[in-house]
Amino acid sequence: MPILECILIEAENGQISLTANNMELGISTVISGDIVTPGTIAIDAKMFSEMVKKLPDNDVTIEANDSNYEVTIQCEEAFFRVRGKDGDEFTKLPSIDRDQYFTINQFDLKQVINQTIFSIATNENNKIMCGELFEVNGNNLRVTSLDGYRISIRNVELKDDYGKFKKIVPGKTLSEISKILTGEADSEVLVYVTNNHILFEFDDTVVVSRLIEGEYFHVEQMLTGDYATKVTINKRKLMSCFDRATLFIRESDKKPIIIDISDEGIDLKLVSNMGSFEEHAVAEKTGKDLTIGFNPRFFMDILKVIDEEDINIYMMNSKAPCFIKDAEATYTYLLIPVSFSVPE
Amino acid sequence: MPILECILIEAENGQISLTANNMELGISTVISGDIVTPGTIAIDAKMFSEMVKKLPDNDVTIEANDSNYEVTIQCEEAFFRVRGKDGDEFTKLPSIDRDQYFTINQFDLKQVINQTIFSIATNENNKIMCGELFEVNGNNLRVTSLDGYRISIRNVELKDDYGKFKKIVPGKTLSEISKILTGEADSEVLVYVTNNHILFEFDDTVVVSRLIEGEYFHVEQMLTGDYATKVTINKRKLMSCFDRATLFIRESDKKPIIIDISDEGIDLKLVSNMGSFEEHAVAEKTGKDLTIGFNPRFFMDILKVIDEEDINIYMMNSKAPCFIKDAEATYTYLLIPVSFSVPE
Repeated sequence: MPILECILIEAENGQISLTANNMELGISTVISGDIVTPGTIAIDAKMFSEMVKKLPDNDVTIEANDSNYEVTIQCEEAFFRVRGKDGDEFTKLPSIDRDQYFTINQFDLKQVINQTIFSIATNENNKIMCGELFEVNGNNLRVTSLDGYRISIRNVELKDDYGKFKKIVPGKTLSEISKILTGEADSEVLVYVTNNHILFEFDDTVVVSRLIEGEYFHVEQMLTGDYATKVTINKRKLMSCFDRATLFIRESDKKPIIIDISDEGIDLKLVSNMGSFEEHAVAEKTGKDLTIGFNPRFFMDILKVIDEEDINIYMMNSKAPCFIKDAEATYTYLLIPVSFSVPE
Repeated sequence: MPILECILIEAENGQISLTANNMELGISTVISGDIVTPGTIAIDAKMFSEMVKKLPDNDVTIEANDSNYEVTIQCEEAFFRVRGKDGDEFTKLPSIDRDQYFTINQFDLKQVINQTIFSIATNENNKIMCGELFEVNGNNLRVTSLDGYRISIRNVELKDDYGKFKKIVPGKTLSEISKILTGEADSEVLVYVTNNHILFEFDDTVVVSRLIEGEYFHVEQMLTGDYATKVTINKRKLMSCFDRATLFIRESDKKPIIIDISDEGIDLKLVSNMGSFEEHAVAEKTGKDLTIGFNPRFFMDILKVIDEEDINIYMMNSKAPCFIKDAEATYTYLLIPVSFSVPE
């Protein structure tokens, strides 16, 4: 049982806190209870959480032996006994300067993470692509993620002017935070940043994470207002077309979905060795007719995180990046098309 | 795409039916619709069911090409095209004599399967242990399953006298049927048996299965009314004790739960290399004190399928089979105890 897989229980100074720390990311939360004798102990995190889940809904007594670190967890007539570890072996969370910060409500933070996290890179070859860029500029937070095939950009309005700074936050940290956040709109999260760390504080919980060092990609130069073809379409309708089309693709498969755009709307087509799919959908088109191919899963990922009823798709030609964005550019998704051969 | 993995669609004689058949087990169901041109076609079952799930909630048109077996499945503006197979290659369900039979309502059948299926053997070394014995005796159906460690016996009262016969039904067949049954108490299932087959008929569906040949185990001689110790305990309470105890066992682990029975109730104890668990539970005891060990998962399996609030456990000694049964013996579960060393 390595100490990194433990939860530290601290019952000191009239406060009970639980802390986990894997050196990249640390989470600490304060819980209410009675301290009979102050002390600290580290317990295997997974085991401890399973125990707590299985206990009756009643007061729990935790007793640790100072010399052999044996821990008894008791609730009603049930007793668990496990071997813990010396709390002093545990690496405490780093202390963070609380100078630079912004606040955001839980709903917005949870939402903006979920709306961008899908387009970070999953392999660690490019460290920076595994994070998201958080840019504060006055009362605006802009969150950017990209993986070489697509870019996600979301803007969130903040309550106050918090100055101007930007940090690259690890995707893993953001996924974990998104799980813990209740997502309530009237509950605030305080976000402090230093050169190397970011700290999120909400409810009775503190999350501290290392930042990713380096310069983020300059995506601004890839964003353009120009387009040759614009399509406006019902999002739900388009999603169910894509859902049907992906039936004929397996994981390893790289078959594109081909979209034929004309005044009549759009025609989607996907051909794989399992079969072929075709569907016509009503859409509003301005500009030139166009035939363009996409990785259907990548397109779906974007559709899933847009809440609007109708979406706008802006295209230049079959090789240039396509943009899905709203009129105010509160969100911008860029997707690179794929080459295709026209099926018969 | 082997023909055994296909669904046969038959649109003939004014009736549309879907049939699947893996030679052990076959299922056929009739659906309503319009036949434009009669015919039959076989389509990959998994693919077909995924397509149907993804289609809009509207009429579906299925069109098969007689010469190349290309199938078009259309709904609203969506078209799927897949390659099917000649319907004549498909092995039809065997025709079954409808002389010997009984009827049972869907609720009872689904219930009796779920209450016994967990104690069939999972490896195929002993074919007979992979089935369940269905015994009809007048207006009583008795279902028995066993795996060498435990025996499950359930009795169900039938509406009529259906004579006297017994058959060994494959566990796989019963699991599949249990999934299809809606479980409604006012919907009847007709069950026909021949020497080699069993046929279940309900709603618009027919399930035909081979039977397992051979003589089932004579469990009667293992059942006894004698006991030295009897414990009556709240089932839910005991289940949550077992649930907590199993926290310290991993799959491969064979640690027993040791139960100490005395006038004060029962004390459960489980020690593994992960930790130890102890709990006291109130219980009503008659007869001798006893310390006995069980495979906790096997005991849990039984507790899960008993609906009664309190259960009776009958034991002779720490080596003899233990019985869990109700006063009327509508159910009897036998569990063989395991040896154990007394922990400190």
